[in-house]
Amino acid sequence: MEFEQFFPFWGQLTAVQQERFRQSMKKRTVKKGTIISHGSRDCTGLILVDEGRLRAYISSDEGKEITVFRLLDMDICLFSASCIIRSLQFDIIIEAEIDTSLWIIPPMTYKSLMEESAPVANFTNELMASRLSDVMWLVEQIMWKSLDKRVAAFLLEESALEGSDTIQMTHEMIANHLGTHREVITRMLRYFQSEEIVRLSRGAVRLLDRQRLEKIAG
Amino acid sequence: MEFEQFFPFWGQLTAVQQERFRQSMKKRTVKKGTIISHGSRDCTGLILVDEGRLRAYISSDEGKEITVFRLLDMDICLFSASCIIRSLQFDIIIEAEIDTSLWIIPPMTYKSLMEESAPVANFTNELMASRLSDVMWLVEQIMWKSLDKRVAAFLLEESALEGSDTIQMTHEMIANHLGTHREVITRMLRYFQSEEIVRLSRGAVRLLDRQRLEKIAG
Repeated sequence: MEFEQFFPFWGQLTAVQQERFRQSMKKRTVKKGTIISHGSRDCTGLILVDEGRLRAYISSDEGKEITVFRLLDMDICLFSASCIIRSLQFDIIIEAEIDTSLWIIPPMTYKSLMEESAPVANFTNELMASRLSDVMWLVEQIMWKSLDKRVAAFLLEESALEGSDTIQMTHEMIANHLGTHREVITRMLRYFQSEEIVRLSRGAVRLLDRQRLEKIAG
Repeated sequence: MEFEQFFPFWGQLTAVQQERFRQSMKKRTVKKGTIISHGSRDCTGLILVDEGRLRAYISSDEGKEITVFRLLDMDICLFSASCIIRSLQFDIIIEAEIDTSLWIIPPMTYKSLMEESAPVANFTNELMASRLSDVMWLVEQIMWKSLDKRVAAFLLEESALEGSDTIQMTHEMIANHLGTHREVITRMLRYFQSEEIVRLSRGAVRLLDRQRLEKIAG
């Protein structure tokens, strides 16, 4: 594992700091469906994805969900370590979408490095700005994009992530990603099917006409 | 002006850094309606509100708007200096809601201090985390809260900001804050009026029953 490629500040740490960082990191492997962080109550630590896929989502009191962003190989998540930044005041749930191996950096190790090192603190700034940009993009999607566009974009994104034309997901799961109701997704997918854009089967959606999906997604 | 109260890192700067900071700040007074920053194209600098009120909002290609947060006395805005953080990739517009006096900290002055000083970089982290929390709150509002709750909460917030039971705003303006259509707001306000919660007149809404509004807002 090459720390430099994950942490651009690596070369600016002292040998002692590097050693402290390296010693504190813990490798974990989690099964699909594992909840790694429940939000601000937990303060698990920073998560660095080695291989796999995590989903960050929020959920309402009634159990409705919407995906805020996903973490792929080499992505780093800060929100599972919300105790290191006082003003991070929201609950985001981090769940393994597939079997995932990851590194956990204990919150107090990271916090002490942030306090000592401007490069670490500025890296944290970039991480947070990047997530904030994701969330602003999500707001724009929810506010201004019609649902057909969002479903089409989601199917294309899923297909790219899975490297397959067949997406193994129930309508309920798609609804939970997009923050809507199952019935609404079913209606939209049936419309796509009637237009021969997708073919539906139990727990799966197969993409037939990628070009039209791209056109709908805009 | 006491810099320490605005910038908790003040005491951790060297005398030279303090002087550089102080020298670079510019005082400006803007009239109600002035757009101070258009988003990422501009890189005006950090804004520190001395006295007044700013509104940060996003707008769609079709000109629809939604308020993301507001800045009151002593608040600091980073998004008008998006060139200092590479990963800040969205456009937010900052507009004076009332006549406002403010300080502008040039982006390059702030960026160089952030790079030199961990306390400045960590303060920036807190600023960003706080705005990110605002945006996450907004997502939850849009996703899970019915519009009657949002309108009720907005009327109460406005009334508190103005220090008055009468809110001088058109239905169009309220719609632009909440990211919805004028017609929808008109319908909701008329319903509130029929319930004797508010009284409507041209360009104004008067709150009659604050208790019921609070109950609706939840």
